[in-house]
Amino acid sequence: MQKRFAVLLVIFALSHATVLKASDQEVQPSQSADISGHWVFSAVVLGEPVGGRLIFKVDGEKLTGTGDGLSLFGKLQEGKLEFGLWAQTRPVATFKGTIENGKLSGTVTLRGQPGTWTAQRPSTRPPDAPLFHNFEPKQFHRVFSGAIDPVLKIYPGDTIHTWSVDAGGIDHESARRSMGGNPQTGPFYVEGAVPGDTLVVHLKRVRLNRDYAISGSSITGRALTPSYLQTIKNAPNFDSKWKLDRERGVAMLANPTEKLKNYSVPLRPMLGCIGVAPQGRQAFGTGDLGPYGGNLDYNEVREGTTLYLPVFQPGALLFMGDGHAAQGDGELTGDALETSMEIEFTVDVIQGKMVREPQAENDEYLMVFGIAGSLHEALQSATTGLVQWLERDYKLNSAELAVVLGTSIRYDVAEIVDPHLNVVAKIRKSVLAELNKESK
Amino acid sequence: MQKRFAVLLVIFALSHATVLKASDQEVQPSQSADISGHWVFSAVVLGEPVGGRLIFKVDGEKLTGTGDGLSLFGKLQEGKLEFGLWAQTRPVATFKGTIENGKLSGTVTLRGQPGTWTAQRPSTRPPDAPLFHNFEPKQFHRVFSGAIDPVLKIYPGDTIHTWSVDAGGIDHESARRSMGGNPQTGPFYVEGAVPGDTLVVHLKRVRLNRDYAISGSSITGRALTPSYLQTIKNAPNFDSKWKLDRERGVAMLANPTEKLKNYSVPLRPMLGCIGVAPQGRQAFGTGDLGPYGGNLDYNEVREGTTLYLPVFQPGALLFMGDGHAAQGDGELTGDALETSMEIEFTVDVIQGKMVREPQAENDEYLMVFGIAGSLHEALQSATTGLVQWLERDYKLNSAELAVVLGTSIRYDVAEIVDPHLNVVAKIRKSVLAELNKESK
Amino acid sequence: MQKRFAVLLVIFALSHATVLKASDQEVQPSQSADISGHWVFSAVVLGEPVGGRLIFKVDGEKLTGTGDGLSLFGKLQEGKLEFGLWAQTRPVATFKGTIENGKLSGTVTLRGQPGTWTAQRPSTRPPDAPLFHNFEPKQFHRVFSGAIDPVLKIYPGDTIHTWSVDAGGIDHESARRSMGGNPQTGPFYVEGAVPGDTLVVHLKRVRLNRDYAISGSSITGRALTPSYLQTIKNAPNFDSKWKLDRERGVAMLANPTEKLKNYSVPLRPMLGCIGVAPQGRQAFGTGDLGPYGGNLDYNEVREGTTLYLPVFQPGALLFMGDGHAAQGDGELTGDALETSMEIEFTVDVIQGKMVREPQAENDEYLMVFGIAGSLHEALQSATTGLVQWLERDYKLNSAELAVVLGTSIRYDVAEIVDPHLNVVAKIRKSVLAELNKESK
Amino acid sequence: MQKRFAVLLVIFALSHATVLKASDQEVQPSQSADISGHWVFSAVVLGEPVGGRLIFKVDGEKLTGTGDGLSLFGKLQEGKLEFGLWAQTRPVATFKGTIENGKLSGTVTLRGQPGTWTAQRPSTRPPDAPLFHNFEPKQFHRVFSGAIDPVLKIYPGDTIHTWSVDAGGIDHESARRSMGGNPQTGPFYVEGAVPGDTLVVHLKRVRLNRDYAISGSSITGRALTPSYLQTIKNAPNFDSKWKLDRERGVAMLANPTEKLKNYSVPLRPMLGCIGVAPQGRQAFGTGDLGPYGGNLDYNEVREGTTLYLPVFQPGALLFMGDGHAAQGDGELTGDALETSMEIEFTVDVIQGKMVREPQAENDEYLMVFGIAGSLHEALQSATTGLVQWLERDYKLNSAELAVVLGTSIRYDVAEIVDPHLNVVAKIRKSVLAELNKESK
Repeated sequence: MQKRFAVLLVIFALSHATVLKASDQEVQPSQSADISGHWVFSAVVLGEPVGGRLIFKVDGEKLTGTGDGLSLFGKLQEGKLEFGLWAQTRPVATFKGTIENGKLSGTVTLRGQPGTWTAQRPSTRPPDAPLFHNFEPKQFHRVFSGAIDPVLKIYPGDTIHTWSVDAGGIDHESARRSMGGNPQTGPFYVEGAVPGDTLVVHLKRVRLNRDYAISGSSITGRALTPSYLQTIKNAPNFDSKWKLDRERGVAMLANPTEKLKNYSVPLRPMLGCIGVAPQGRQAFGTGDLGPYGGNLDYNEVREGTTLYLPVFQPGALLFMGDGHAAQGDGELTGDALETSMEIEFTVDVIQGKMVREPQAENDEYLMVFGIAGSLHEALQSATTGLVQWLERDYKLNSAELAVVLGTSIRYDVAEIVDPHLNVVAKIRKSVLAELNKESK
Repeated sequence: MQKRFAVLLVIFALSHATVLKASDQEVQPSQSADISGHWVFSAVVLGEPVGGRLIFKVDGEKLTGTGDGLSLFGKLQEGKLEFGLWAQTRPVATFKGTIENGKLSGTVTLRGQPGTWTAQRPSTRPPDAPLFHNFEPKQFHRVFSGAIDPVLKIYPGDTIHTWSVDAGGIDHESARRSMGGNPQTGPFYVEGAVPGDTLVVHLKRVRLNRDYAISGSSITGRALTPSYLQTIKNAPNFDSKWKLDRERGVAMLANPTEKLKNYSVPLRPMLGCIGVAPQGRQAFGTGDLGPYGGNLDYNEVREGTTLYLPVFQPGALLFMGDGHAAQGDGELTGDALETSMEIEFTVDVIQGKMVREPQAENDEYLMVFGIAGSLHEALQSATTGLVQWLERDYKLNSAELAVVLGTSIRYDVAEIVDPHLNVVAKIRKSVLAELNKESK
Repeated sequence: MQKRFAVLLVIFALSHATVLKASDQEVQPSQSADISGHWVFSAVVLGEPVGGRLIFKVDGEKLTGTGDGLSLFGKLQEGKLEFGLWAQTRPVATFKGTIENGKLSGTVTLRGQPGTWTAQRPSTRPPDAPLFHNFEPKQFHRVFSGAIDPVLKIYPGDTIHTWSVDAGGIDHESARRSMGGNPQTGPFYVEGAVPGDTLVVHLKRVRLNRDYAISGSSITGRALTPSYLQTIKNAPNFDSKWKLDRERGVAMLANPTEKLKNYSVPLRPMLGCIGVAPQGRQAFGTGDLGPYGGNLDYNEVREGTTLYLPVFQPGALLFMGDGHAAQGDGELTGDALETSMEIEFTVDVIQGKMVREPQAENDEYLMVFGIAGSLHEALQSATTGLVQWLERDYKLNSAELAVVLGTSIRYDVAEIVDPHLNVVAKIRKSVLAELNKESK
Repeated sequence: MQKRFAVLLVIFALSHATVLKASDQEVQPSQSADISGHWVFSAVVLGEPVGGRLIFKVDGEKLTGTGDGLSLFGKLQEGKLEFGLWAQTRPVATFKGTIENGKLSGTVTLRGQPGTWTAQRPSTRPPDAPLFHNFEPKQFHRVFSGAIDPVLKIYPGDTIHTWSVDAGGIDHESARRSMGGNPQTGPFYVEGAVPGDTLVVHLKRVRLNRDYAISGSSITGRALTPSYLQTIKNAPNFDSKWKLDRERGVAMLANPTEKLKNYSVPLRPMLGCIGVAPQGRQAFGTGDLGPYGGNLDYNEVREGTTLYLPVFQPGALLFMGDGHAAQGDGELTGDALETSMEIEFTVDVIQGKMVREPQAENDEYLMVFGIAGSLHEALQSATTGLVQWLERDYKLNSAELAVVLGTSIRYDVAEIVDPHLNVVAKIRKSVLAELNKESK
């Protein structure tokens, strides 16, 4: 059978989407008897975890609201509640339960299968938010996985200042801190993020914190024709260490050959990896990428860029690492100018609305990542993502989408060396400013 | 940085390869003082597990042998041992340790990084081997992962008789036993299998154990041209339940349309999934496939077929499931004739020699699975795998390989609906019988 | 602008399709005054040739009928005629003209642009048809092109016995007859075939006519992984000449290496090339393939196979050549066992119905060729072609197509070495016999 | 057999390359008896034309020099000459002939096959060169082909001022001049260009000459995911006519929908097509592209860009057309803003050195076109072309190439809608200025 891996009951309806920012973090009612408002639930059915958000409206004994974007109908009597989540005309799940000590718990029937569930109020932001966290990493991870304990719990609006080791596991003081293979800093647990949301990461600082980098010294075979590949002569003893001159803003080979003694590359520090824990019990090596983000290796994931990542696990579990001092398109040599990095970022959560693939934004462009096993499917995915973004936010019809993208789309080949390939479709924000956007 | 995920110290040298069968399971020396012979070690370096096989030869105080295919040199004095594993002229790892209660333990330095290690004798086969196990599964798994506890430990030569639920989680009595998505029976831990080995699985029985199946009823968009895709009209209310007539050996739609009332498909029961735990801490959904095998969806993985799978984790951890009563090439509809299955298989281990991708064999053909993100790269991988098999076993040079495969290679498009695609390159064994094979 | 190359006014409607065979070749009315029945017209508009078939029905002064599959309405008065061809509610072309000496001529307005036209009766089959032609080729062609003068005009039902040189231009007596690069025998002009028809070629004999062949001795880089490609060592001085033993039915290397001294390949003579002149003024090298057929390099284009080719030029202009004594899937070495060939074939024409890509049939299978620039698009094209064949001939809906092909489709990777790749989708005729076919 | 289409005897050695400009056009000796210097020869062998350049040095009776880049050795006695062209240690061709009326003619043996040849002095540039030609096109062509008579013969250094119709065949006065499908202006015959040379085209003016354009209004299915494709709703009655406001430098829809009433696109006039006659007797539709250039559809083929095209036919035969007022990446809608165009260009010839694929240059970038049947192979071809350019001009070794391109390569996805796809690899000239280039 082919893959079908539905974590969520349904993809959230757009009308429920609200950005959860520091300023508008809602205060939850204090008396436990009133179940109105937001809850985070987790259920186990047939040994599989399912989770999401419940929003109750209480009107006497009548319960309405939404659960995972579905319509909720039920009743509440003497501390006992019973409700169903309905997709159109059919109940998808029915819950029975009781309220005790401010928590809900009971039994659930999901698509005919019995299970148990609990729910509790979303964690309340402490009064002095948003916070600034200075996080010193101790351990580094080589898989993106929901099974890893978070190193820090943060709230939407909080800012984290931290650093990452280079792709080989070496830190800014040249000390080995991990095995190689893009070891990650994190994961950070973002309060209020549940599966079906979108995590927003604003990269405030992505700065070099040491003076050297190491690059690859051969072009990936995937980018060269088979006939040329068979003629390549190895250049032995090439030293691919780079000196990073932060004052002049350039990288140069530390021990250049005669031909390259004047060759310099402008420093444009970027993160090769940024991602969240993937769906279910999956765990992917940090050399790979997917809907959860990961080893995106795109040279525009830089200071000033905002990332949008789908949330598959409670708290999202955000990882980052694999800093590059500079990188051409495609990350042709497998290793860009690999180095450790100083990082500062702020998070937000868009509730009830999930991007289907990583997206990004900077001053100039909206960008959609197309991640697939071939360039062809990566480009298809990127184009479709951008089409759907414009469809959703600007309500353009198919002909309007065609003339806008036919004249204004740009593609970047982000990387072609990882197990999955990454093509970015982007469009200038100045172009979008000319569209008559009636509603978002 | 691109992916580089080296679990093993090195790929094992061919000369160490021996098939570990029931009949020739070696007896280990009983006195704990003599450390000669096989050990299984596991180490932790920078938080990462590393493991494999050590083979000591003791000559007075002098230690020689091999470890993970590398040369081992060291000394043994008064219950203390110290040795290095050497790749060519450089030590890759150095071990220090002591012997206590028949176990070894100590500290290790792997590529400059400190860690700890332990080793113990491989488990000894019980005297009444090989055994026949009748295994009744209770739980089913939807990821291929080394983090799942094995349900049964078996020895090379043992036979297991068991069964699997269908891709949707339904068993032969129509009871739901799991969420859908190719839930797997297993994992089975195979004693004596360590990373760098090859697991051999002989499928003795793959038989239907119920009378119906469910198939898909639309062709995957990946297999159709974009222009045709835009013209498809859905056929509503189509009932894709099949009746499996085990006496006549055919499947027919349970409630066929007028056009298909005489349409029948010969029953050819197969397993859509067979795989081992992947490398490191990775965990892949059971809808996907890779070097670890998985959702191969190849209609020749049937009774009588032998599979070869690389071992990435101690005990290999073998999973299987996703039975199909019949399937065309490519698994075009995403769901073949999905049904539960009765399974019987025997395992062997080829020590010290690892296939790089799943391979198979039946009476007629040698088969290599090419698994990749595009048809193009899947075909490249399959061809190369078959080339390397012939190179290794028949010592053919590039021109000999070209004329043999140029005249005798056959390709099957196994599946094109899963996240990774699967192309099989195969060659008749009768062709190979004509090659002058000097040594294997 | 992208390609849009419409030769034909429209693709012919299915209801007009009739197979033109020797036995039912219609006799045309002899008196020139009655214009009823079939005409072949050619027009020139804006310097471009357009052509096809007109079928008049005369009812007093009223003209009806069809032209290139469009509806024809007009009038006929005193040797002057005036008519339009209508697509639904709009006239596509309007013709004015006169009858003189059994020919029609005049002016035409096609999509608003003026031009001239002439028409004449289709050539009448001589009374002693069908004929057997023994054709001795003198010249060989290295492009598929409508600009090449036909070497012989034949009628549907006729049989041609001829031969081809090998891919290098050498004939059965080892004489060089042409430069290399798949020089073709032909082209043969088939009376009664006009653009929009389908040419049917029954291969009656495809037999070896000499005792040796030459093959390639390296595997195409396209079929191997980039990393393997960089490790290949050339095997110098390999002699890739083959001895063809027609009595034993096997090929063996003429001067085998030690390893291959017993290696033999069953002879299965096939034609690497069969094709017609492509659309318009295009001319394609005989190493390439496309909707016109060409260098298909499929090992089932053999004696006993029937080919269906779209007609793009008056007379179709049929070419063939590039014989292979045997070939594995994919034509991995670029050159199969290249040899000269004895060929005998019979032609038919299916009027008013055009296959969109080459198709074939033998005792066992229906086969559709998917020809494209990538394996992915080739497989899409092949699947879609087979889907459309079943849709057209069996009137299956999308779910019926899915369950039939999901259980019964087979793919062959025909070749992966030419500029375009070729994947074949096929289905057993025994399967189709089980479908309730109401009308064809 | 796969394609092998060698036009040239060999690819020219680099050391023979010289740019033939207006200023340095050499004067040929006038007396016919002295055969020293340049000749253009054409031969016919086995019905196939072969041609190129001969350069004789005469030393008494001894003849030396080069022919098609091969070494030439022979003798000259009493008006009779006899010489061979040698590749390393083997003669490829031997010529015998006589001198008469300033022409050479005789018999040739090419790779063992007999033929005839003639040669004459290259046409001498008229004294008043370089010329400025104002060329008014009358006819337009829909194939790139060497069989089309040139409309004008020009010399290196000459400038041509002309115009093109739009992709549909409509000129700047809205008159239809041709059937649609990218009809081309030309072909122009460039004196002194022979197969194996490179044609240089400097685009001096590419300007709009009318006030409207027509675009497509749907996105090509190739750029969208199969699942999205099945959900698209057509937007009927969309008017895709654009108003080109040359004063403000923008295009706007002539009759915009409410959403697009403020949407404007900066005018960036470009040529969708520029190409030469392809090799041999091939003729390709003007919707396609290949090593000969053609329908490149790259939005940087603009005023100020210089193109490099391989020469396959005597005189190169240069075509151009298919103007776009503006185009996004990929030409997503199949039709960009299609319009007629005013064009002015100057030509040069690089003798004895042939680019393998089209290349281009503007103030900022060097660009290589990768043209293939898939994005994957197009990117491989583009990268390899850029690698080879740097290898040739800067003598970088494989590691130097890797670090320069790994840090500085950029890719553009030029178009994905034509039969072949086009990916451009480019590098800033400022980067190259930092390389120590020892010799070109």
